[in-house]
Amino acid sequence: MSRRRIAILGGTGYGGAELLRLLLAHPEVEVIRMTSRKQHGRSVTGIHRNLLGLTDLRFENREASMAGDDADLVFAALPHGTSQDAIAALPEDTAVVDLSGDFRLGTAETYEAAYGRPHNAPELLDQFVYGLTEFERDRIRRTQRVANPGCFATACILALMPLARAGRLDGPVALNGVTGSSGSGAEPKTTTHHPERATAFRAYKPLVHQHLPEIEEELIRGGTTEPKLSFVPHSAPFVRGIHITAMVHCSGPIEEEELKRIYREAYGRERFIRLVDRPPDVASVTGSNFADVHVRSAGSTALVLVAIDNLVKGMAGQAIQNMNLVLGFPEETGLMAAACRP
Amino acid sequence: MSRRRIAILGGTGYGGAELLRLLLAHPEVEVIRMTSRKQHGRSVTGIHRNLLGLTDLRFENREASMAGDDADLVFAALPHGTSQDAIAALPEDTAVVDLSGDFRLGTAETYEAAYGRPHNAPELLDQFVYGLTEFERDRIRRTQRVANPGCFATACILALMPLARAGRLDGPVALNGVTGSSGSGAEPKTTTHHPERATAFRAYKPLVHQHLPEIEEELIRGGTTEPKLSFVPHSAPFVRGIHITAMVHCSGPIEEEELKRIYREAYGRERFIRLVDRPPDVASVTGSNFADVHVRSAGSTALVLVAIDNLVKGMAGQAIQNMNLVLGFPEETGLMAAACRP
Amino acid sequence: MSRRRIAILGGTGYGGAELLRLLLAHPEVEVIRMTSRKQHGRSVTGIHRNLLGLTDLRFENREASMAGDDADLVFAALPHGTSQDAIAALPEDTAVVDLSGDFRLGTAETYEAAYGRPHNAPELLDQFVYGLTEFERDRIRRTQRVANPGCFATACILALMPLARAGRLDGPVALNGVTGSSGSGAEPKTTTHHPERATAFRAYKPLVHQHLPEIEEELIRGGTTEPKLSFVPHSAPFVRGIHITAMVHCSGPIEEEELKRIYREAYGRERFIRLVDRPPDVASVTGSNFADVHVRSAGSTALVLVAIDNLVKGMAGQAIQNMNLVLGFPEETGLMAAACRP
Amino acid sequence: MSRRRIAILGGTGYGGAELLRLLLAHPEVEVIRMTSRKQHGRSVTGIHRNLLGLTDLRFENREASMAGDDADLVFAALPHGTSQDAIAALPEDTAVVDLSGDFRLGTAETYEAAYGRPHNAPELLDQFVYGLTEFERDRIRRTQRVANPGCFATACILALMPLARAGRLDGPVALNGVTGSSGSGAEPKTTTHHPERATAFRAYKPLVHQHLPEIEEELIRGGTTEPKLSFVPHSAPFVRGIHITAMVHCSGPIEEEELKRIYREAYGRERFIRLVDRPPDVASVTGSNFADVHVRSAGSTALVLVAIDNLVKGMAGQAIQNMNLVLGFPEETGLMAAACRP
Repeated sequence: MSRRRIAILGGTGYGGAELLRLLLAHPEVEVIRMTSRKQHGRSVTGIHRNLLGLTDLRFENREASMAGDDADLVFAALPHGTSQDAIAALPEDTAVVDLSGDFRLGTAETYEAAYGRPHNAPELLDQFVYGLTEFERDRIRRTQRVANPGCFATACILALMPLARAGRLDGPVALNGVTGSSGSGAEPKTTTHHPERATAFRAYKPLVHQHLPEIEEELIRGGTTEPKLSFVPHSAPFVRGIHITAMVHCSGPIEEEELKRIYREAYGRERFIRLVDRPPDVASVTGSNFADVHVRSAGSTALVLVAIDNLVKGMAGQAIQNMNLVLGFPEETGLMAAACRP
Repeated sequence: MSRRRIAILGGTGYGGAELLRLLLAHPEVEVIRMTSRKQHGRSVTGIHRNLLGLTDLRFENREASMAGDDADLVFAALPHGTSQDAIAALPEDTAVVDLSGDFRLGTAETYEAAYGRPHNAPELLDQFVYGLTEFERDRIRRTQRVANPGCFATACILALMPLARAGRLDGPVALNGVTGSSGSGAEPKTTTHHPERATAFRAYKPLVHQHLPEIEEELIRGGTTEPKLSFVPHSAPFVRGIHITAMVHCSGPIEEEELKRIYREAYGRERFIRLVDRPPDVASVTGSNFADVHVRSAGSTALVLVAIDNLVKGMAGQAIQNMNLVLGFPEETGLMAAACRP
Repeated sequence: MSRRRIAILGGTGYGGAELLRLLLAHPEVEVIRMTSRKQHGRSVTGIHRNLLGLTDLRFENREASMAGDDADLVFAALPHGTSQDAIAALPEDTAVVDLSGDFRLGTAETYEAAYGRPHNAPELLDQFVYGLTEFERDRIRRTQRVANPGCFATACILALMPLARAGRLDGPVALNGVTGSSGSGAEPKTTTHHPERATAFRAYKPLVHQHLPEIEEELIRGGTTEPKLSFVPHSAPFVRGIHITAMVHCSGPIEEEELKRIYREAYGRERFIRLVDRPPDVASVTGSNFADVHVRSAGSTALVLVAIDNLVKGMAGQAIQNMNLVLGFPEETGLMAAACRP
Repeated sequence: MSRRRIAILGGTGYGGAELLRLLLAHPEVEVIRMTSRKQHGRSVTGIHRNLLGLTDLRFENREASMAGDDADLVFAALPHGTSQDAIAALPEDTAVVDLSGDFRLGTAETYEAAYGRPHNAPELLDQFVYGLTEFERDRIRRTQRVANPGCFATACILALMPLARAGRLDGPVALNGVTGSSGSGAEPKTTTHHPERATAFRAYKPLVHQHLPEIEEELIRGGTTEPKLSFVPHSAPFVRGIHITAMVHCSGPIEEEELKRIYREAYGRERFIRLVDRPPDVASVTGSNFADVHVRSAGSTALVLVAIDNLVKGMAGQAIQNMNLVLGFPEETGLMAAACRP
């Protein structure tokens, strides 16, 4: 009955909150620490009121180098840019799952190009495995450090990787992404101000979203030489969920049966990927670690639809899936809760 | 590892869906049957798509008398009026938790007055204990048949019972209730048509809601002689949750300290009632079995605010809480999941 | 064809935006100026993008004393506290409709008690008429300065004034208010952060809201000696609209017919008050200047339900209704647009 | 002051409701009749409660041949399939704007292929002009009969026609459409049941939507020989609005400056098309007849984003725009109201 001990760096955002919510129901671990500079000393449930009655944790403000003391694994749920400094300060043998974008890309150059600033800890980049669990499972089992994918990236890669591996990702790909407001984080902004957002639907960062490079890198690892992706993310007035509509204009005709076979072979034995028989709905996955995937084709156009919860499979859930692998638990441990519906 | 066996009568509505969602995560039971006349033979996850990958059940259409065969306990999640016939057809020794309004009131007369039709099985009324768990726990442990309270009734009784027991419920009470759209059930209606409901807020059945009699009966069991309740329910554009604002005009001044003491004594040791230090929010309880309660006073007015999830503490969760008592499990078994937030 | 000229002080908030939207459709006036310190020089439609193609105005940053130059009437749509300074700086003969709370209360003492700070221009208080148009019409026609009521106050007074005038407001009154998120203004806050607000319902400032004093003052002007009001406002997850549920516990029985007669006499000839035959819905008034009112009774409890759009009848619409009176136009000019529905 | 007289056939749906709302504010016409078989005799405001106080109309049940008596123009706001019979019954010289899909396609064959049933009045097809006002203005001025475009079709054609006319629509086009729930009409359905829809986002009829043929026909009229369109519509949890994301994979590079010039030339003088400098938001057009359009390019991909209100520019507003042309009024008459925002 001795549970493994977990620390969460950056406990006030939605990533930290969701990690804690999920880990409170995980039978093999206990969260021993959540850090926050601002909320230092305050009870965690003062901020995350849904967790009242379930935890007595208080936010700690620890010196970076000691933030992981006594922990078997550290989740870094810190802002992009801050995370690399916090992780660099940890002892080298600390197991880490990083939820930020800091260690997802292969080189300091690609990082700087994508995020517009130099990387502070380029020497650590090689330690990290990209944590798209379904495709990097073996490498994750052998590492101590995982760079958890972005939420859009998770859904886009789940949509495209089977085609990439099958050698059919050989034409222009139109990627339409739609995200709920929780993807913008816990900090109030004009774009997530309820009077504005509740009736809004609009694109943002069209063709230039920062998740594109990690999608491309992973697809290249999957065997595609030069993915031709156009990605347009959109903001929708729901809270949780990401939906991807991928239209792949293949170089030649693609039969629906072939397409289904490719996806069945890729995902048929995956615990968290559900091949569904009609277009997936984010409402069927919110709160859960499931990804629902549906395919269609017409002529040489392959259509792949994916729905995930951005905070679970797109963030904290996949992070725990990766933690399970790093710590040697069955991959699905603590992650089998269904979405509430309605 | 031998789990107790559960049957759910009426599996296509929100009550049945939520029972199944919660019971799939319950460590001591397994659901062996869900019935549905209309969906007979269809897989349960064809309707409840959030549960894909978690169950292989198919809807069964069983003769009423055999609907509980092989089950240790039957949940009736049938429409008001239908439930009494289905339960009357079961063998007398079948343990039952009924989610409908059919067995909540004490006599056939009060039933007919509240629901506008005669009761078909008045001889069974005495078998049923009113399942407001926190106040009827001892009687529920000793029965095989529980009438699960209405969602509004649950929240109103949680709001008022401590005052009733303390003898302070002695003036007119203004009860304002607000419910999400899931309280109207799974059948599409004009009042829950998204284009209408998404921006709507309005009262309905003002001063005449059918939950009033069960609230009054329970408060009288609690010691109030003649509760003077005015209840106005409202429809709001959220999906899950009930919020009650109870303004009790006491016969004399009531200090906030006294009020807090009354509620602390009533709820301080309750696992699912959380006394919160600011007005509760339905968003902090949705998906969970928690009820958040907050009190204030000014002069002789006592204000009690309660938030619950109508489908969990107001329906399926409390039903399982009652099942746990009937079957002898710890009351909180399988019910400690937190609300997702955001 | 010479239109009267209007200036709006404080043009970036929802009050200013809504004034401009409505005044662009007003046949007798033109907006010659919107001021904003922060957005100085920027085009108004850069902020209020719904108005693109309808106006070429740019935000001006004018010295306070000259902000009303060349204008026949000035709307002050500034924050509480700021407004009094801006208005004090205007020439004495400038016609003003003030949307803030600064000039609504009768004395500097009541102002300080309600808002927690001394009034900077107490000598101006006497110039202002409280702008609840339906009840102060005659005084508004004869003044140059109107203090536009608060949004909750408007709905509460419309609910209670007929009873007050009829001498039946003689028992405790439970006022439940519900507001959409636009009532919190254009500035992002945690309570209006979409991920939090979209599923939220909760009370705030229970029993102590700052609109209570202006409601009480107006009811006293209406003839009630000592209104016994308990007011609990709530936040709901819609954008526009206020709903009031007023339960009046009268000293003696009140027949529904009497109640209806009282409201018919009060509102039967009012252009913007619609006595509706079932509980009103905020969705039927949003975007419009209408207030929908419905009454019921049971025993000695009178129930009054009111729905308005907080930004129109609760703010900019009523302000223009008052402007029409001050400038001598028919009261309904420019205000007869219906709510969009759905 | 003699207004032209308008009849609306089918007055209970959202099309009829929106026509009436807009026409009540139109200075040159009056609505003399709304028909409904089911609601015959009932007051129109009993159904469309937002219009209370603005009209005394009652629904009429007229024999089809006399439904247009005394009217200068008839709007048919009837279900697809029903409309053709109602229009065939009218005298030949009755001016008609039809909101259904019945007369949008050029031949009985294309109609049958798209709608899956034979056309009942193929001899009338030639009388109708396709009412995409901005591109068919001259023909509409000279006709008495207009087939009003579908809501998705309107937005897609506005997105693509400038490229088609410029000869740059020469590669595969990925059309992603997103619609609010009001697009499903006034009849409650499971897909628009609030508990399901409020948190839903999903594709439907992927690659096979019935609006595709009318889009293709109009683009071919615009000069494209064989448009290669893949269209995936999606349901989102807002009420009003359609958003189109069109990714055009051109045969060669397309500079952003060229793209902007093409759209400026097409729309620079259009009253209802607003070329906006950032991605458009449905919230900025809802309730209004405006279409907001934004373009970007990267390599050989042209991105066009369009937002309209499905019930206004996508239905009743464009229908009135067409009525204005048929009856000889300035095109924008009665249609310049701005969106409410927030």
